[in-house]
Amino acid sequence: MARKILLAVTGLDEALWQKEIERLAPEFKIVTEITNDADDIEYAIVWKQRPNILNALPNLKIIFSAGAGVDHIFKDDTLPKVPIVRVVADDLTSRMSEYIIWQALDHLRQGVRYRKQQAESLWQEDKAQPAASAVTVGIMGIGALGMDAAIKLQMIGFNVLGWSRTPKNNTHIDTFSDPDGLSEMLAKTDILVCLLPLTNETHGIINTQLIARLKSDGPLGGPVLINAGRGGLQIEADILEALDNGSLAAASLDVFEQEPLQQDSPLWAHPRVMVTPHAAAASNPLAIIPHIFKQISAYERGEALENLVDISARY
Amino acid sequence: MARKILLAVTGLDEALWQKEIERLAPEFKIVTEITNDADDIEYAIVWKQRPNILNALPNLKIIFSAGAGVDHIFKDDTLPKVPIVRVVADDLTSRMSEYIIWQALDHLRQGVRYRKQQAESLWQEDKAQPAASAVTVGIMGIGALGMDAAIKLQMIGFNVLGWSRTPKNNTHIDTFSDPDGLSEMLAKTDILVCLLPLTNETHGIINTQLIARLKSDGPLGGPVLINAGRGGLQIEADILEALDNGSLAAASLDVFEQEPLQQDSPLWAHPRVMVTPHAAAASNPLAIIPHIFKQISAYERGEALENLVDISARY
Ligand SMILES: NC(=O)c1ccc[n+]([C@@H]2O[C@H](COP(=O)([O-])OP(=O)(O)OC[C@H]3O[C@@H](n4cnc5c(N)ncnc54)[C@H](OP(=O)(O)O)[C@@H]3O)[C@@H](O)[C@H]2O)c1
Ligand SMILES: NC(=O)c1ccc[n+]([C@@H]2O[C@H](COP(=O)([O-])OP(=O)(O)OC[C@H]3O[C@@H](n4cnc5c(N)ncnc54)[C@H](OP(=O)(O)O)[C@@H]3O)[C@@H](O)[C@H]2O)c1
Repeated sequence: MARKILLAVTGLDEALWQKEIERLAPEFKIVTEITNDADDIEYAIVWKQRPNILNALPNLKIIFSAGAGVDHIFKDDTLPKVPIVRVVADDLTSRMSEYIIWQALDHLRQGVRYRKQQAESLWQEDKAQPAASAVTVGIMGIGALGMDAAIKLQMIGFNVLGWSRTPKNNTHIDTFSDPDGLSEMLAKTDILVCLLPLTNETHGIINTQLIARLKSDGPLGGPVLINAGRGGLQIEADILEALDNGSLAAASLDVFEQEPLQQDSPLWAHPRVMVTPHAAAASNPLAIIPHIFKQISAYERGEALENLVDISARY
Repeated sequence: MARKILLAVTGLDEALWQKEIERLAPEFKIVTEITNDADDIEYAIVWKQRPNILNALPNLKIIFSAGAGVDHIFKDDTLPKVPIVRVVADDLTSRMSEYIIWQALDHLRQGVRYRKQQAESLWQEDKAQPAASAVTVGIMGIGALGMDAAIKLQMIGFNVLGWSRTPKNNTHIDTFSDPDGLSEMLAKTDILVCLLPLTNETHGIINTQLIARLKSDGPLGGPVLINAGRGGLQIEADILEALDNGSLAAASLDVFEQEPLQQDSPLWAHPRVMVTPHAAAASNPLAIIPHIFKQISAYERGEALENLVDISARY
């Protein structure tokens, strides 16, 4: 009897995942619809799985998230009590940093202004162009992704600060934790990067009150927001209001309260907003699947799992 | 009698330079128009100086370029035989790397495509998004600026190659020299960055023949050009032709054959060209002038000058 693995990925290229799993782990039979084989399934790879399917697997040993985030898994409140493992992979991490640096530089170097000038055939240099060293990037969520972005942004010349739930030591980045730490960081932040997971604690954290605490007299004509965490972290109505009343100068958003972003959202046409379709770190299955099967092998040899989700913290 | 320094800067903010020199080096009297004090002038700070003014200074000891490039100085073929010192300053170097990384990422991450999709309220992810690690940046001119950009691009994940006149050793970047080395580099290059100085040897180097040698089957839909060296390095008619016949996918140009770029240049409106007004590394006088006076002090203590121009190579 072949060993079985559940593949329940919504919104991903299921055929590609299937092909790659077959190539890498031919000893497993892939189940995409559970019929009468629930008892045989030992592992599950999921992305936005339908609720109630995992708790129907009595011999399930590990749930693997097909990506870095796990908020999609916790939408199901009947989860069985098994370890949840998420993706931490160089390919995904680097891609996220590419996105963050790209957008931070587009704000620093005034992409909007120069593209507009070009459209008008206007040759006009900004005499007060600040250097990265005059700008502070504050990163909410300085975990696997946030820390990589932090180190690279610092190397490009930005001042970088980070905020996390638990205190961090031994980093070359100045970090903060707890709510007071957040206030301290926000007050120094010109470009706010959000790479938090979506949890009960972080839901809606990017709101009018938070934006009001950002540094308002920095060199970019007001604070800038870059959110590539999750749409549920932001209140879009508050962001739009802040853009219009001047408490935010600009925003780059890769994630939205509702995805795809609704056709009638004013974010699409806002001249100071950059919208990307949840594409900041489109992870390549070929770069992710090997990590999953490496962990299965290690687990079966009795070794500890890596990148375990803290079930109580929900990330 | 006050010691005298000539300030002959065209196209820069002369008043700001003057104020900062007065603040930093009050022992010098600044001369902007030579009248009867030619004999007293020991040093000259120049940017696009008028020809024949420097050779009228019998006691001139050093010519300082107000920026990194010195092609503007050599336009005068009556230069006195004194050392020429150019600017190498962290502020300028970092700003150039900001620009190069910004544009490299805008090409890698398909800024043109995503901004167009946004304008159409279109939510559509690129399923074949290459990672930086699948893209090779070839840098022509791996000097002070090119090497800094190379190291930072590599750290972001790009493969980076460099080409210089003289061979380089002990770098973490694979480098090439001589014409054969250039061909080898171009054949591997997806994004060509040009940070060469403008000399007799490099004039017009970015032309149809060179573009034809770039890698044509890379992951960006064709090779991309980023030129922030000098406009004289490029043949704009050849670039436009290459963009239109598919041998170039896109270009970011900060410098032009004629500056300001002529109003009727098709580059302004080309959808795959990013035009900036020679603003890649707008050096802040406050970050540059201290370097000049540090060198004057060192020279007067009998120490060697740094960042000396090779008069025979003209850079
Ligand atoms: N847009 C995209 O394409 C995309 C792609 C991948 C991932 N993501 C998002 O990015 C998120 C982060 O990924 P990651 O791999 O970096 O996760 P991670 O390693 O778990 O890092 C999360 C960071 O957020 C901090 N954090 C969590 N809850 C917090 C709270 N209540 N207050 C303060 N800080 C808190 C954590 O603090 P501690 O260090 O103290 O734990 C940690 O520093 C994912 O959850 C996912 O939502 C988006
Ligand atoms: N757009 C802007 O805002 C801006 C601002 C600042 C500077 N620039 C331009 O950037 C240029 C480079 O500045 P930099 O400080 O990096 O100069 P640099 O340190 O002198 O570096 C020049 C590089 O070009 C190479 N090179 C010169 N002639 C060559 C040839 N014939 N064949 C192959 N390689 C050749 C040099 O080779 P070796 O290493 O063998 O000498 C060196 O690697 C300046 O000259 C200026 O034109 C533009």
